Order: sequence, then C-alpha cells, then structure tokens
Amino acid sequence: MAPKQVFLGTFIHATALDKLEYLHDTAAAVDEAGTIVAVETASTTADDNGTAWVQSVLLPRLGWTDDVHITVGRPGQFFFPGFIDTHLHASQYPNVGIFGKSTLLDWLNKYTFPLEASLADLGKARQVYGRCIRKTLAHGTTTAAYYATVDVAATNLLADLCLEAGQRALVGRVCMDQLSPAFYRDESPAAAEAATRACIAHIENVDPEFRLVRPVITPRFAPSCTADLMDRLGRLHAETKLPVQTHISENVSEIALVRELFTGTVPPVDDGETDEHGRPSKTVTYAGVYDHFGLLTDQTILAHAVHLSEAEAALIRQRGSKVSHCPCSNSAITSGAARVRWLLQRGIDVGLGTDMSGGYSPSVLEAARLAALVSRHVAMGGDEDAKLSVEEVLFLATAGGARVVGLGDRVGRFAPGFAWDAQLIGLGHVDADGRIERVGDDNDDDEDTNVDYFGWESWEDRVAKWLFNGDDRNTKKVWVSGRLVHDRAAKGGVPE
Amino acid sequence: MAPKQVFLGTFIHATALDKLEYLHDTAAAVDEAGTIVAVETASTTADDNGTAWVQSVLLPRLGWTDDVHITVGRPGQFFFPGFIDTHLHASQYPNVGIFGKSTLLDWLNKYTFPLEASLADLGKARQVYGRCIRKTLAHGTTTAAYYATVDVAATNLLADLCLEAGQRALVGRVCMDQLSPAFYRDESPAAAEAATRACIAHIENVDPEFRLVRPVITPRFAPSCTADLMDRLGRLHAETKLPVQTHISENVSEIALVRELFTGTVPPVDDGETDEHGRPSKTVTYAGVYDHFGLLTDQTILAHAVHLSEAEAALIRQRGSKVSHCPCSNSAITSGAARVRWLLQRGIDVGLGTDMSGGYSPSVLEAARLAALVSRHVAMGGDEDAKLSVEEVLFLATAGGARVVGLGDRVGRFAPGFAWDAQLIGLGHVDADGRIERVGDDNDDDEDTNVDYFGWESWEDRVAKWLFNGDDRNTKKVWVSGRLVHDRAAKGGVPE
Repeated sequence: MAPKQVFLGTFIHATALDKLEYLHDTAAAVDEAGTIVAVETASTTADDNGTAWVQSVLLPRLGWTDDVHITVGRPGQFFFPGFIDTHLHASQYPNVGIFGKSTLLDWLNKYTFPLEASLADLGKARQVYGRCIRKTLAHGTTTAAYYATVDVAATNLLADLCLEAGQRALVGRVCMDQLSPAFYRDESPAAAEAATRACIAHIENVDPEFRLVRPVITPRFAPSCTADLMDRLGRLHAETKLPVQTHISENVSEIALVRELFTGTVPPVDDGETDEHGRPSKTVTYAGVYDHFGLLTDQTILAHAVHLSEAEAALIRQRGSKVSHCPCSNSAITSGAARVRWLLQRGIDVGLGTDMSGGYSPSVLEAARLAALVSRHVAMGGDEDAKLSVEEVLFLATAGGARVVGLGDRVGRFAPGFAWDAQLIGLGHVDADGRIERVGDDNDDDEDTNVDYFGWESWEDRVAKWLFNGDDRNTKKVWVSGRLVHDRAAKGGVPE
Repeated sequence: MAPKQVFLGTFIHATALDKLEYLHDTAAAVDEAGTIVAVETASTTADDNGTAWVQSVLLPRLGWTDDVHITVGRPGQFFFPGFIDTHLHASQYPNVGIFGKSTLLDWLNKYTFPLEASLADLGKARQVYGRCIRKTLAHGTTTAAYYATVDVAATNLLADLCLEAGQRALVGRVCMDQLSPAFYRDESPAAAEAATRACIAHIENVDPEFRLVRPVITPRFAPSCTADLMDRLGRLHAETKLPVQTHISENVSEIALVRELFTGTVPPVDDGETDEHGRPSKTVTYAGVYDHFGLLTDQTILAHAVHLSEAEAALIRQRGSKVSHCPCSNSAITSGAARVRWLLQRGIDVGLGTDMSGGYSPSVLEAARLAALVSRHVAMGGDEDAKLSVEEVLFLATAGGARVVGLGDRVGRFAPGFAWDAQLIGLGHVDADGRIERVGDDNDDDEDTNVDYFGWESWEDRVAKWLFNGDDRNTKKVWVSGRLVHDRAAKGGVPE
C-alpha cells in the first residue's frame, strides 16, 4: 500500500472528444489504493500555493489524519492523464525505425518474424522487454496493450516485468498457426490454445484480480490463423470474458489475402455493394471473418482499420468493437491514411497506438502528433472535416484509449473513482536572454527541453506546443495507481 | 583563428542522392580557417584508436608541427555533416506548434503577422532570435536560410547574433508592400528597397567577405509584393548577385490569388495545357510571375513548390532555381503533399526546410523524417516510386540543401576544400539489463537518449534508428568552419 497522497497545481484532461478541461489551483486526493477520492479547487494566497488549504481544510474534511504525501506542480507545470497505448508489439522494440521501403507482408517476413522468434531466448527477452517498458513509461504510457510473441515463457516474463515496473498492461501471447515461417509458428490450433491458456494462468497467478496486468486473447491477424484456431480463440473469449486484440484492414494486399483464405470457410456477408444484376452482393469481409468466429465483440481491440468498408464499419459499430489508430505505422510502412473522423462519425470508439515497430516511436505523444498530421492528409484528399484538433488527438491518447482497452471507467481522466494514472509535464520558460530558466533546485533537468514557452502564450497554446514538440524530457514524473513508476530526475528514470 | 584540428572515428555522409558513405577508422584534418585539408583512413591497432597514427604519420605528412587539437569519436558515435535548413522564419520561432486548424492565408493573419510586427522591439527580437539560433544549433543546423521581419534593426540584430553564435546563415529582410495589415507593411516599393539595401550594407560591414553570414533578397511571396517592388528586387538581384529567397505554390488559394493579382500586369505564359480549340493555352503562373521580374535564377530558393504545373517545373529547371521542401509545414497547415521525386526527376535541386513556424519543429532531422513519411503519402496517392529512402532524405538534409543555398562546393559533405561544418552523433547502447550504458566520463548525458541500439544492428540500421527517433540529445557537438558552436555537455549548450 502506498501512502495517502495529494497532488496540487494545474490539471489538464480531456473530458470529451473536443474538450480539454483546465483546472488551476486544484488538488487531487488519492487514497492508499491509488484511487482518486476528490478533485477540488484549492484556496491559494499570494504566499501559499494551496498547501495550507490542503492541510487545514481538505485533509480534515477527508478525515485523513495520518501522514499524507503532497506533490506540488511548479508554476508552468501541469498534471495530465497517463497515455494509453492501445497497440504495440513489445517484442519488436529493437526494430523501431528499421523498415526500409517495405510494406506489411514483406516487412513481417524480412524484419519482424526473425526478431520475434529470437526472443525465445529469455535473456534477450528480458533485455528487450525491460527496455521497452522503461522507455514507454518514460514517455508517459501508463497503460499498454502489448503483443509479446508465441513463446509462453517470454510472454509470462513480459507480464512479470510490467508488474515489477508498475505499468498497467494487457499482455497477449501471439497466436499464429499458418502463413508464417516454420521456425516461428504454432504447431497446431490445439497447441496455440493451450499456450494461450498457460499465459492466462500465469497472469492469474501473479496478479489474481488483474489489478495491473490482464491477459488478452491475441490472434495475430486473420491471415496467420486457421479457422480452427480462430474458432478456439472465439470460444475461449466467450468462456473467459477476457479481451481480444488483433489487426484489421491495414493494407490492401492483406485484405485481398484474407478474402482469398477464408472464401469457402466463412459465409459471405452483405458488403453494401450491389452486383451486376442490382442485387445486394455478398463477399467475405475482414470484419466478417472475425465476427464469424465470435472474435468481434465489445471487448475487441482492432488495430489499424485503414480500409474498412461501410458495411464493415456498421458491423464493428453494432458489435461495439474498438479501433486502435496507428498513424506512425500506417505512414511508415505505407499502409494508408486511416479516416479517424469517419470512424468516429460512425460511432466507433478510437484510441491511439504506437504500433512499434511498424511505427517507429515509443511515444503516444508522437502518435497524437502524427494523428493530427495524417488527418490533414485525409483532409487534403477531399474531406475538409477530417482534420483532428489538438484537443481531439489528446482525447484519443487518454480517455479515448481508455475506452478502447476496456478501462474507460478507471483511467484516462481526473475524477473520483478513477485511478491516479498520471504524468507531470514541465516545459521550458525562455528568459530575456533566450536561455531556459532553471526553476528547480533538484536534478530535474528543466533546461533540457524541446518545448519553449515565452510566457505570453495561453494555456491552450502551451498544450499545442507540448503536443508538437514535446518528448520524454517534458514527462517529469509518472504514476500508475498512485505508485511513482518513472522519475526523470532518478538514475535511469527508476524511482528510488 | 582556431587551432589546427584532427577528427578521428567514423564519418558518415551523403555522396549522392541515394548513397551514404561510411568511413570507419578515418581522420579528417582541418586547418586554422576551418577547411578540411585531408580525409584519410587511419591505421588502428587493438591498443590504439588511430591517435598514434595521426601523430606519427598524418601530422608529419601535413607538415603540421605546432599544436593540433584532436577530437576522437567514441565507439558507436559518428561524425555527420551539419544540417542545412533551407527555409525558416527566425521571427516566428515563438509560434512553433501554434496553428490550430488554419491554412496559409488565415494562418498569416491570425498568428504570424502580429508576432513578426512585435519584433520591432529589439529586446524581444534578441530574446527570440537568440533562442532560435541556440535551438537550431543544438539540433545540428550549421547553415540556416533565415527570414527575419520587415524591421531593419531587428534583421541586422539577427545577422549579428548568427555571427556571435557562429552559425552560417543567409539573413533576409522581409519585403512586403501589399495585402498585409497596415501595422506590418513596407510603406512603398522604394522604402522596401532602401531597407533591403540597409541590411545588405550592415552585413557587408560586419562580415565583409560573407564568410559566415550573407544577405538574401527576400520578397515575402508574390501576393504581398507589388509589381514595382518585385521589379526593384529583381534589379537589385541583377546588380548585387546576392541570392533570392521566396515562397511558391504552397496552397491552392494562394495560387489563385497570384493569378488574380498579376493578370494584366504580367504576360501570360504557356501553361502546358490546351484551350477548347486545341491551341496551347496561356495563363499567368506563379513561377512566371517571379521570372518576369528577374527573380527566378540559379540563385533563387523557392520554398514549398507543392502544386507546380509541368510548365512551371520546366521553367524552374531551365532557370536553375532550387526548391526547399518543407514537409512539416505542408502537413501541419494542410497545404498539400509536395512531390519530391517528381521535382528530382525533372532535374530540380531540392533541400529541406523546417519552415518554422508553419512547420512546428526546429529540427532538420524531423524535416527529413517527415519528408520520408510525406513521400509515402504521395506513394499511397498512386506513385509507388515516390517513396524516399533513409539515404535520400539525409542527402536532402545535407548535400542537397547545400546546393539549394548556393554552398554545394563548400558544405554538406566531408572532402578536402569543404568547411568543417559537422556534428558528432551519439546513440544509446542498451546493456543486458535493458539500461543504457554510460560510456563517457564527462557530462555528456549518454543515458538520456531516445535512440537505442542493441549492438547487433548494422550501421545502416543505426542510421535509420537515428533518423526516426533521434533528436538534439544525439547531437553531442556541432562545429561551423572548425569552430565548436554547440556542446551538449556545456551549460546551455554554449561552448566555454
């Protein structure tokens, strides 16, 4: 149990798709379980930043008489919800930035499968997963929906390392029993199911109530799973009620491959088109394949969704499945420009994914930045309404992502009942000589920042500056469920 | 005069559009004027990194008997040519990241003109320009083609500050005598010309041979310049042989505005289309306007060039004018996706520009990253050949940019006769526990990096990792003409 805590200063969070709320001179009280119990306006004076009010008014009102740890954000700093990375492959972390001119299917064979297979070496897995967790925490990711590999021991190690570091995570053991190299494939549908059950059992053992780490059923994507395997995983989902994550409609060749592979196995569905006789035509659709096997539910996270048809979007909306938008990845490996506005207008929940290493960056802030830019490319394609604002992409990065991973009532904003999954953000204030003012008296590195503010900017403009030029240097501290899990001032970022 | 110097270690530079050359165990000798006099393979042994060979073989051969300062890159580090930022507005630096959902013409009125006008306050100009120079140096920009403002004193201050900090620069006093607010406009074409001449005279005074800073004739863009003003600036260019910089074909509304403004003033030219009678049609084109006033020559830097017609590209090629590609800006303010491959195939030289603050980032490395991504969006639009490789965008960032600013025989690569305009790049090496190894014994911050390498990557892969996740933390030291102008280990980056 952590001590009771109060956080004091400016809080900024997304309360709706197009709304950031700015709470100045505010206090958040967090109990021993890491849950926010109060968010209140503090009374401040010229001489007091609110600490006196906390001591004399807030704590007595809460009945908190034992020691309470108070963290005060400095002027110019603000608390922001931790980021939710709704899609990333921890196992591919060493390959970030390495993709050449490839596209999805050749990228998998050339770069990805050999690396993933090599993580059956647990020493290497510890190195890679350890680095990935520390790196994403440093960038403010408090919840990550991870793909590991097919290897059970390495997947269990990833879950252990998340628990140890204190990162909230969905951890998925990858299932794939076809169309992948012989050295990296499940031996059979039954073996894949058994391995998945083994990983679920491990997490049930180390985190019985899934307080921090949850298993997630993970068919890699339809082309790499036989019908038998998908059927088994759909039944496992129905049995366990555990979430599902997979990929959908990332790349045009992949979509054709899915249709080819499952025609004859999966019944065709109405695709919203008409045939040459003017009758509704039916085809095997990517979304229809998952639906057929019971894998398209309100607990399903679908990564990419770049090229969905109207009929598929309607099906996904009907089932309540969610989409992880991965703009870095989609641009880097030339998959397409996902139409986020189009998805949102159809009532589908959307979050952001770094999709390392299809995406090159461990940063959800970078994913948000790219979501804004990619939306402008969609706009330049003709849909002026497609542009996403600063507010919108930061919503997707936090509260939107929380909904996608099934934690919409638990993380992503500051309100009583929510977990204290948060980051403290600091920017650099430029002095009259063009240098950055050192405001701290500790080793927190104020001078080293890529975000400058001059003092005349509105808070909205400061947040825009952070979105577009911010990086892990601006993320001073990170908490998950009230536990300090990253401290930039500490060696290696690991709190003492 | 600096001392004679030798740099020893791995050197990487772009020797052609699609070629990075890797020179390991290499020494570059740099004379007192900051010019490279030799680039040679050093003889190394297990016990010696080449220093002994430098002392016993290279220096005697060069006849260098006095003190020589030797800088050794550590294992894993490499020397890279300094970046050339072929287009940026120093005066807009405080607005980076602030653009909302605007596009060019409303962005200018809402965000840009008020800020630029405010820099007539020299205290504010010193703060903003000082920060901009330090920031771009920290990101490895050794040459910058700057737009200042209409204010003569502030423009002169920018030139002085570049000289003081040691950044190579083209400094342009902005000319604009129409279609801008009354509070921020040249009073007359004659006044604009006189003000430009005053700035040229100032730079001739402070840097008589333009060793570091050169004036650049700067009509803001055609819509903000009357025919009389452009005529005067074209004559000034012919008289002085000084370079010219301006904007072209950034945004569709802007192009229509140029046609509207100059029809009747500038003769129409063949636009490569045919009219309804099948005859070659003629219109006023953006490139044709500059050409008419003698502003389209082989010393002209044209920023953006997003929507050029074939006929305009042919004219630009014929005149030998250069293009500054600004991908961050073009995506951020929704201007379009420039077809860099298309420009290159037409024989036009291309470099990269950050275009702050249309672009949000001070980093040419970010511009190179975005150039790669935007080229993939062009490819997704149908031209598969449009994709730019790691090698290509790094060529544009260095040797390509050098050609654009008229310094192709002086900076951008490592060869005798070229200036030592360089940066030392360091990445982070991940140890077995997933931490970054501390390799230095000084305060150079090895642990704080966004680029990890595990040790098994090829050099090509390490460079790709740097391109996609690198930032100013990886730029350990920066030199211009042999002078150390940025040292990350020093307070504020300013070498002692």
